[in-house]
Amino acid sequence: MDIDVPSSFDERDWGRPVDGGPVRFAVLGLGWFAPDVAIPAIEESDYCETTVVVSGGREKAERVAEEKGVAHALTYDDYADGEASDAYDAVYVCTPNALHLPHVETAAELGKDVLCEKPLEANGERARKCVEACEAGGVELMTAYRMHTTRSIRWVRDVVQDGAIGDPVHARGAFSYNLIAAGEDMDQWRLNPDLAGGGPLMDLGVYPMNTSRFVLDADPEAVHATTVEGPPEFDGLEKYVAFTMEFPDGQVAECDSGYEVAGDNYFEVGGTHGRIRVDVPFNVDADRTITVSKGGEEQVVEVEEPSEMVEEFDYFATGVLTDMEIEPDGRHGYEDMRIADAIYESGESGGRIEL
Amino acid sequence: MDIDVPSSFDERDWGRPVDGGPVRFAVLGLGWFAPDVAIPAIEESDYCETTVVVSGGREKAERVAEEKGVAHALTYDDYADGEASDAYDAVYVCTPNALHLPHVETAAELGKDVLCEKPLEANGERARKCVEACEAGGVELMTAYRMHTTRSIRWVRDVVQDGAIGDPVHARGAFSYNLIAAGEDMDQWRLNPDLAGGGPLMDLGVYPMNTSRFVLDADPEAVHATTVEGPPEFDGLEKYVAFTMEFPDGQVAECDSGYEVAGDNYFEVGGTHGRIRVDVPFNVDADRTITVSKGGEEQVVEVEEPSEMVEEFDYFATGVLTDMEIEPDGRHGYEDMRIADAIYESGESGGRIEL
Repeated sequence: MDIDVPSSFDERDWGRPVDGGPVRFAVLGLGWFAPDVAIPAIEESDYCETTVVVSGGREKAERVAEEKGVAHALTYDDYADGEASDAYDAVYVCTPNALHLPHVETAAELGKDVLCEKPLEANGERARKCVEACEAGGVELMTAYRMHTTRSIRWVRDVVQDGAIGDPVHARGAFSYNLIAAGEDMDQWRLNPDLAGGGPLMDLGVYPMNTSRFVLDADPEAVHATTVEGPPEFDGLEKYVAFTMEFPDGQVAECDSGYEVAGDNYFEVGGTHGRIRVDVPFNVDADRTITVSKGGEEQVVEVEEPSEMVEEFDYFATGVLTDMEIEPDGRHGYEDMRIADAIYESGESGGRIEL
Repeated sequence: MDIDVPSSFDERDWGRPVDGGPVRFAVLGLGWFAPDVAIPAIEESDYCETTVVVSGGREKAERVAEEKGVAHALTYDDYADGEASDAYDAVYVCTPNALHLPHVETAAELGKDVLCEKPLEANGERARKCVEACEAGGVELMTAYRMHTTRSIRWVRDVVQDGAIGDPVHARGAFSYNLIAAGEDMDQWRLNPDLAGGGPLMDLGVYPMNTSRFVLDADPEAVHATTVEGPPEFDGLEKYVAFTMEFPDGQVAECDSGYEVAGDNYFEVGGTHGRIRVDVPFNVDADRTITVSKGGEEQVVEVEEPSEMVEEFDYFATGVLTDMEIEPDGRHGYEDMRIADAIYESGESGGRIEL
């Protein structure tokens, strides 16, 4: 086989000399992910530092600030009022989806660059407003799609784009998690339509959606979808979605995502002359396997790579501190929200929706 | 894990005492499959025998008859005229799709039971006529869906229907083969719209389509699909199709099939509490692997099973010789042709098509 899957990925192919920094972050939204994953990654990064934490309640902000050795603890109101704005250069927005917009608008007004968790907002219109606010404020906006900076996925994109499996014909991917079987709280924001903007599609389905766009290096022209409504606790949100994206030149991506189906986590691209599959691409720092099949041979490699969130934060900081263009920028994240809107429209109406 | 994947499948769960027989077959259509696979399987079977071979040309029929030790060699015209009709009890139709109907009609008129290769015909209307002819003639009609009698796939259906992976939520499957890369003849009947009735969907895509119906034990209520037109040599036929089938109670099946994409051959069912995947389900007597994931554990078993075509022929004969009902009967095969018609309609119009 003429493809050699590396078992480790030693280089930041986007790496370049960085002057200045560090980029000092205000971290907004102190659920489990920011304190447990994001703030430690910032600590470990080359070009970033957490100087401010922001939460709904002062007590929580102060507790996290103390635990993590962060200088400033703010409430959302403090943040909106511009308090301690000299103490940070950028914000990392890690709140429920529908709360991204006001925080992004504040950052843009304050001239702070923004790294905003995926999905960019709760729907296309609000995502567009995030983009417009940052463009008006002249600040960077990156949608925190880890897959863009995860080295193994960048390698997959490169070999696919280099034609190593021939012309890419289709992508397939799924990301599902049975949160009911896991006994999760049915009152969480992910099951609140006003805060989440959608069900598993917004939380999990955006991974295979965006990774298809990233690896195929193209944007869909149309989608069609099936959505299956969840139990009453889901308040009208889907519990399952299957969607097909039609790309230019006949490329197709088929994805699904669910909240009441056994865990599922894979991404695959089929070309005219081979296939590349990644198992467990979407969980952060997961045990990941890449399988390449070509010409009747198969290679299965367990890959190792550095902390994905460190990669993501340093990539963002490099975009802020150098002239490197950030690929998953605001417009890129907005495109996914347009696609999600179209998927929901198709699920309702039954038609193919042009984008 | 409470599921134990057997590595071999020792029993015909449909087996029962059979009186009489053997069922003497006229085998129609002497491409590679009938002489190389079907006739040897009939030879090896418990309840079947080949007594007649039928082809377009007398010379070919006589050559195969001599090679295989078959008593009678007929042309299609001889067969249509009822020649040697005392010498066989049933017909096995293995001709190009759009030639099934006249042969099935002849068999029905002659009072011969019919085992007809998949797809039942080239479209829904012609498939319906096959069914009606056999019902009028009072003869059995079985659509030769191997998956219904392949023991490993029957086992998968049983554990899924027993609830071993919880409630089934979705099925996924693909069957693709790059016949261009394989250097196949572009003049073959599979690329002739008049003879095939469609591209890879009719030849390969019917496998995951029908296996989804079989394993979920349900029929779809609607489909939506993307079809991608092939190169000029495909004469308007699709080179790729991705289709989603919507079943009652929100179950969904997502399948794809192509003629210009690297080989692909899998079937998977995801339930609320586990997943079962079969690799290489659709090639006859392939090396097959079953992977079960449940509760964080995974079992991967390479399975062994007896000749699939022997199973299929003996199942058909048992249906003919006893009161066993044939599951993949004519109406069952007709349903797939209705689904295929709807998939093509959706590919053209872009809408969800109700069945």
